[in-house]
Amino acid sequence: MKLVIVGGVAGGASAAARARRLSEDAEIVVLERGPDVSFANCGLPYYVGGEIAPRDKLLVAKPQLLRERFRLDVRTRSSVEAIDRQGKTVRVKELDTGREYDEAYDALILAPGAAPLRPPIAGIDLPNVLTLRNLDDVDRIKARVDAAAKRVVVVGAGFIGLELAENFVKRGMETVVVELQSQVLPPLDPEMTVPIVEAVTSRGVRVILGDSADAFEAAGGVVSVKLKSGETLAADLVILGVGVRPENTLAVDAGLDVGQRGGIRVSESMQTSDPSIWAVGDAVEIRDFVTGTAAQVPLAGPANRQGRIAAAAILRGDSRPVARYRGTQGTSIVGVFDRVAAITGASEKILAKSNQPYRKIYVHPADHAGYYPGAEQMTLKLLFAPDTGRVLGAQAVGGHGVDKRIDVIAVAIQAGMTVFDLEEMELCYAPQFGSAKDAVNMAGFVAAGLVRGDHPQADMVTALDGPPDEQTTLLDVRTPKEFAEGHLPGAVNIPVDDLRGRLGELSKDRPILAYCQVGMRGYIATRILLQKGFDVANLGGGYKTFLLLRAAKVLR
Amino acid sequence: MKLVIVGGVAGGASAAARARRLSEDAEIVVLERGPDVSFANCGLPYYVGGEIAPRDKLLVAKPQLLRERFRLDVRTRSSVEAIDRQGKTVRVKELDTGREYDEAYDALILAPGAAPLRPPIAGIDLPNVLTLRNLDDVDRIKARVDAAAKRVVVVGAGFIGLELAENFVKRGMETVVVELQSQVLPPLDPEMTVPIVEAVTSRGVRVILGDSADAFEAAGGVVSVKLKSGETLAADLVILGVGVRPENTLAVDAGLDVGQRGGIRVSESMQTSDPSIWAVGDAVEIRDFVTGTAAQVPLAGPANRQGRIAAAAILRGDSRPVARYRGTQGTSIVGVFDRVAAITGASEKILAKSNQPYRKIYVHPADHAGYYPGAEQMTLKLLFAPDTGRVLGAQAVGGHGVDKRIDVIAVAIQAGMTVFDLEEMELCYAPQFGSAKDAVNMAGFVAAGLVRGDHPQADMVTALDGPPDEQTTLLDVRTPKEFAEGHLPGAVNIPVDDLRGRLGELSKDRPILAYCQVGMRGYIATRILLQKGFDVANLGGGYKTFLLLRAAKVLR
Repeated sequence: MKLVIVGGVAGGASAAARARRLSEDAEIVVLERGPDVSFANCGLPYYVGGEIAPRDKLLVAKPQLLRERFRLDVRTRSSVEAIDRQGKTVRVKELDTGREYDEAYDALILAPGAAPLRPPIAGIDLPNVLTLRNLDDVDRIKARVDAAAKRVVVVGAGFIGLELAENFVKRGMETVVVELQSQVLPPLDPEMTVPIVEAVTSRGVRVILGDSADAFEAAGGVVSVKLKSGETLAADLVILGVGVRPENTLAVDAGLDVGQRGGIRVSESMQTSDPSIWAVGDAVEIRDFVTGTAAQVPLAGPANRQGRIAAAAILRGDSRPVARYRGTQGTSIVGVFDRVAAITGASEKILAKSNQPYRKIYVHPADHAGYYPGAEQMTLKLLFAPDTGRVLGAQAVGGHGVDKRIDVIAVAIQAGMTVFDLEEMELCYAPQFGSAKDAVNMAGFVAAGLVRGDHPQADMVTALDGPPDEQTTLLDVRTPKEFAEGHLPGAVNIPVDDLRGRLGELSKDRPILAYCQVGMRGYIATRILLQKGFDVANLGGGYKTFLLLRAAKVLR
Repeated sequence: MKLVIVGGVAGGASAAARARRLSEDAEIVVLERGPDVSFANCGLPYYVGGEIAPRDKLLVAKPQLLRERFRLDVRTRSSVEAIDRQGKTVRVKELDTGREYDEAYDALILAPGAAPLRPPIAGIDLPNVLTLRNLDDVDRIKARVDAAAKRVVVVGAGFIGLELAENFVKRGMETVVVELQSQVLPPLDPEMTVPIVEAVTSRGVRVILGDSADAFEAAGGVVSVKLKSGETLAADLVILGVGVRPENTLAVDAGLDVGQRGGIRVSESMQTSDPSIWAVGDAVEIRDFVTGTAAQVPLAGPANRQGRIAAAAILRGDSRPVARYRGTQGTSIVGVFDRVAAITGASEKILAKSNQPYRKIYVHPADHAGYYPGAEQMTLKLLFAPDTGRVLGAQAVGGHGVDKRIDVIAVAIQAGMTVFDLEEMELCYAPQFGSAKDAVNMAGFVAAGLVRGDHPQADMVTALDGPPDEQTTLLDVRTPKEFAEGHLPGAVNIPVDDLRGRLGELSKDRPILAYCQVGMRGYIATRILLQKGFDVANLGGGYKTFLLLRAAKVLR
């Protein structure tokens, strides 16, 4: 068996190592166009900022180790130019010598990754307009920062764009982030990104939303970034981080099936439309685990696991369910300064777009017991099926403990669990680590109450500008002090603890929307009023959710 | 409907609040023997140490709030002396006045909790020999520490005993912990507790295992603790933390069914053998989710959820599966200084005792990407069914990130997932938060390899004192430097990267047990040798596991 792997980073390197573990006899050739294999893509921004040093740390497994331990024939700076599917060979070009040769394969794994998008913007090829993909790129960026570049414009406020922005700030740079969409971190719902914008702006980053770069112009060593809005930004360095596209040229030229958005089509064992060719990682089209639709998710975890699956499929004809790729949930996380945002499963945007019925709740629990020092509040949004309560997605933003809750819910989604399962989860509790009713339990309680019909809830969006209609009473059940510090437009205030004695102030003929700070007192008030015969619903997530939604609207 | 609740802390308070939310009309009486309701049991050790201050913070929901917000009739210092099941009344004694009266109920919830065990040791009633259960207790303990008690002996090295030990050290006390068992933290397997013992001893705590207090003697203001071993310890303060027993007197006197170990027997909706009486919390016998056997687990999370379930069952006749208690997994965690230990599901001890077939693996992954600063290694032990790979239990010890991995696996156990599911989990990855192959994935890879038969593995215990028999070769595949710094008795050294060239040094007629530092290189070596026709198995978990097991044996 001769296995040829195109691409030696996450998916390719994992496939190669697993292939060797499964077969001592296989001949395994890894062809990597870049200078490095198996490097830490996800660490690149932190190398720019100096958090990761020395550079050597970015090399997860060096070629020597791959050769000695795994007897891999690793050839860097070797670009595969074409696949001859009939002859089962690939055309390889040595980038340093220009020499070309054919390499035969019995099985071929394509792990070419995804390339940063370079939209046709005037001036995009200026030497100070850079993208970030590999160590060459990061060297170029860091060299400019080290050479005292002072002003940087990051075009694109995705995960990597924001990580870079943080690291530029840490290097003392004036940093501007420009994002075409009306929010940062496009995979998340907009309101969940508000605390992230606050975190970066409070550190001096300027965030420009709903705008884009129209042209880059060289002007005496600096780049002048012309925005669509008409504004011009001067920069010593511009980073383009507006997305990636699958590196599918080889696959397309070879006539392999690719999806609408260019991802190489694969089976659950990562096999392409050619039974001798597999594909893994950022270049493939996979199935979204929740919506069932085609997806392309450039994430390291899936790439690594897909590599393992492809190697097993090739070397053991492994067709057992245990070795099938199950699709992606899009679980991802970003830390920006002291804030963390994470997502798993479908966002509300995606569910709305795919016309999938859903309901949502927000809770704002602490990461650990409030009575133990250092508790940090997070916002957790849960999306679930209205009828069955099946968990469809979750997003969280906060500080410590965000990763844990999203991981817990990621497993729940993988297991097909419902909000009733979240209620009953038995999670670690000591005051430093959680609460007797964990954040995930709390989300489960609220969502389950909604599915059971115990908890009539209205969408906070309906009340952003005041009562949705003339009949409706907006009822703030917080304390007068909280009310005075800010409340929904047009709300009246009856604290929950006084409510039973002041029912006469409310009319049973008019709908009531109750709310509090985070949703709990609003829920209690709703239960009281409901039982007393009022037409009432709780504005889920409370005033804190209102503030996020309003800010997201303002940011728009 | 008149609901009477005996006990107003975790389970009782949760039941009362939920009952009110479900019914405005119910009359709800909470009878609590102690002076406080709804206090933070789990925070008590940290109040002694000063981490939690002021004392007020320990009161989660004050009686006033329970009265105003939930219209609960909360009566503290009110001891329920008897239940008249026929007459549906309870006999209440006001502890401050001595007055007794009958209180009628339609439904009764027993949430009396568990009391610290007070074994019949001579001198146990000395004023400086204390237990910790409520705020009165913690006041007594703290008063003595504040009054400059210098030497403390903690009898019992369970979760609370060790938390207290940490807090006594923080208060500058000379601290000795005495534990009857041959390990600390008895719910865990012994080898997993070694890093915790190291952490406390390195802070000056003396840990005495396999010994117990035979007598306490007053000697001029101090207590002299006589140990079974003959040693005598002088102490200004002794804490007894040797376990708890369910407060079942009321239930037993009323003829309710109780289990062998005294827990009140309940259905899945927390109903006792009397259809008008429910019971929740530390006093009840529940089902162990993994082994199916009866269990008593004094944990706050289950108590709170059981309270919710009982209230719903009473006030809505809720018999839907969503409102049934599913049994406990025993998920628990303890932080001691900078170390953390946690468990979910069955331990190896429990599985062995219940004759349930299992296999185990150890991995020693970092909490986040090794190339990002601050990565901390943890040890993760996974127990699973040999045939199906169903996850039965997990334990972890380390620092940051231990709670997350145990929570993730707790969900997997709840969902009935297998090691193949752990392999495919899509968890958050950015270098600060995890790894592309997360610790849980790694455990899944190793365990799945074992179930699939890809990964012949032997138990490290067999090689603790050298090769298990004369035929067997112990093969250390680490570097010569690692080998020189310590290795298994009788091992020979061939680094994995040299192995293919030195196969001639090994015999195909003799069994080989390979190992490395954590298990990965040992696995690679095992795969190489297996395919070359050798009789080989990997000593799972490597030299790091050896060190833990050896230390646990020594500690015994």
